[in-house]
Amino acid sequence: MKVTINRDKLMESIQHVTKAISSKTAIPILSGLKIQVKDNGIKLTGSNSDITIESFIPVEEEGIQFIDELEAGEIIVHAKYFPDIIRKSPKDTVMIETDEQLQVTIKSGHAEFHLNGQDAEEYPQIAQIQTDTSFELPINLLKNMIKQTVFAVSTSETRPILTGVNLRVEEGQLKFVATDSHRLAASNIPLETPLDNFPESQVVVPGKSLNELSKILDDTEEKIYISVTDNQIAFQTNHLYFLSRLLDGKYPETARLIPEESKTTLLANTKQLLQAVDRASLLAKENHNNVIRLQTIGNQMIEISSNSPEIGKVEEELTVENIQGEDLKISFSSKYMIDALKIMETDQVRIEFTGAMRPFIIKPTDHEQILQLILPVRTF
Amino acid sequence: MKVTINRDKLMESIQHVTKAISSKTAIPILSGLKIQVKDNGIKLTGSNSDITIESFIPVEEEGIQFIDELEAGEIIVHAKYFPDIIRKSPKDTVMIETDEQLQVTIKSGHAEFHLNGQDAEEYPQIAQIQTDTSFELPINLLKNMIKQTVFAVSTSETRPILTGVNLRVEEGQLKFVATDSHRLAASNIPLETPLDNFPESQVVVPGKSLNELSKILDDTEEKIYISVTDNQIAFQTNHLYFLSRLLDGKYPETARLIPEESKTTLLANTKQLLQAVDRASLLAKENHNNVIRLQTIGNQMIEISSNSPEIGKVEEELTVENIQGEDLKISFSSKYMIDALKIMETDQVRIEFTGAMRPFIIKPTDHEQILQLILPVRTF
Repeated sequence: MKVTINRDKLMESIQHVTKAISSKTAIPILSGLKIQVKDNGIKLTGSNSDITIESFIPVEEEGIQFIDELEAGEIIVHAKYFPDIIRKSPKDTVMIETDEQLQVTIKSGHAEFHLNGQDAEEYPQIAQIQTDTSFELPINLLKNMIKQTVFAVSTSETRPILTGVNLRVEEGQLKFVATDSHRLAASNIPLETPLDNFPESQVVVPGKSLNELSKILDDTEEKIYISVTDNQIAFQTNHLYFLSRLLDGKYPETARLIPEESKTTLLANTKQLLQAVDRASLLAKENHNNVIRLQTIGNQMIEISSNSPEIGKVEEELTVENIQGEDLKISFSSKYMIDALKIMETDQVRIEFTGAMRPFIIKPTDHEQILQLILPVRTF
Repeated sequence: MKVTINRDKLMESIQHVTKAISSKTAIPILSGLKIQVKDNGIKLTGSNSDITIESFIPVEEEGIQFIDELEAGEIIVHAKYFPDIIRKSPKDTVMIETDEQLQVTIKSGHAEFHLNGQDAEEYPQIAQIQTDTSFELPINLLKNMIKQTVFAVSTSETRPILTGVNLRVEEGQLKFVATDSHRLAASNIPLETPLDNFPESQVVVPGKSLNELSKILDDTEEKIYISVTDNQIAFQTNHLYFLSRLLDGKYPETARLIPEESKTTLLANTKQLLQAVDRASLLAKENHNNVIRLQTIGNQMIEISSNSPEIGKVEEELTVENIQGEDLKISFSSKYMIDALKIMETDQVRIEFTGAMRPFIIKPTDHEQILQLILPVRTF
């Protein structure tokens, strides 16, 4: 195996695939990085038991030559040393070559590294999944849907299914839902082409997988292809193949949690509300579980407050656009409210309450594609 | 006590004094931040057993009004909550007021905080030190001298005196020296006015104190006044007073460690050498104590290498400006070499060796104000 390749392009691919590599793996060879030199380019692979990431660098693309010389072959290199060696190479180009003793030579300028490699035959085969259930999305839209939901997955393993985001297709809409049973985040978009054979309520992607995927993807309008089987989901762009296992089990029915009517509706400036909640949370952090209070005052003002007797208290009056319906006093987690408001892209949000002890929902003012739900806390 | 003050100016002072405040203190009141409102401004104090920092904000300075209204008084506030409250204040101005029950009210815009305060009478008195032994330096020069030496202090408490930087005055020069007994860093500058009564070899300032001081000081040419007593050192600028305890004991005599003659002299490009050493260190990190090798090849080339049989090896030839004297093979810690080269400001460095088993020194090429010394490791 031999390849002479652009350092920065190689580094970008390395950074993508190492997101899947862990030094704490039960299968020792998975702590390595797989390099495959083929006739048309070079493919890197990183994997752990949950995620596999492949990144391909073509010989040339759009008139830019990334690879100068290549001889097919494959090798496993130390994921701990190889990335630093490439990053710190003195020249723009690096040459990587293996011999029959699995020695890997890396040359750049006058620097010459010799690394002990491992036989690529010992690396597990990565199945390219076969399925009819696939669809495509612009990458930036997928990243948005992940951002709007993934923070709400459960971090506790008591109900493992809740550590994932549920993907479902309903009425021509693709829907992402996450909940930790105290709050829920949902995001949906219309699908361009209908998708009839999408598995029902069982596509639950680990939140960690979606977070890693989102970090790797650039914020572009290019398409990403998503394919689903019974136990895996694959995300594919031009040069990236990202495979994640799905969580076992059936995701709970969440639609019935969402109140259909509201008794008090609040229209507020997103940023002002976020900052006031953030200030109130300052004194609610300890011994108090982040709980703050919100109280309506007339039809254009709310008071946000918190009280920790041992430390102090905070009160803030905030003028809002509009309050309709019943007067309200309600307590909730400032953390959940901050998480929900942070992902809102609109200047204003609508909050719909159904009483102090019922879940309330937060939405953008001008569309229905995002819905955040928070369960209140009993304090009044 | 009452004061209405510019938020950002207050925040800057808070950030300075909180550098001295630790939540893990044996004296509970020192986990608080002291606020003193005086007729001419406001003084903040933070302290732990080693360092005390005072920051003063005048009512106005250079035509800029920082404080609008004030009533003298003093209070201790939670150093854990107060800084965040000020940072997140909605308006540019905050009002701070105390009542007789030691309640602190902080108002900004419509946000109103009430914090439980503590009686300032219970805060330890900070002695302003009285001494004739004082001198002044431009701040940027002091920061440079700290940067050039403090990284070499010992991190081990086996010889506590080595965790500090030794300040001494010799032949009209102010000299900073730090050593962990494996390497030494020295920086010296000529003093503008002679200083006869400077204590001999016992002014040893904890490295941690100098690091914190350096972080607080802006990189300006303004003067800083330094005063020394038997057990304390004070650094004073216009509005900042930084007091540190000195380490107990006598600093070892280090001058005799520095070789007076050299057998091999190397002149190299600082950045190229630093990068080559950094690359060689990549495979020297584990099981190998960061040890790398340097070997002269003729009079214009060196080879830098390291070898970890279980991982791999690296070799790099580097063309240098000039090599004079005997051929040389020497091994040393790449970490020490990287630390030493990083603080060199000149494009080229001179390295003077006196054989493979003797300490070697690294200097700038055009002045004698910085000296770095490294002890080699026996491997050849």
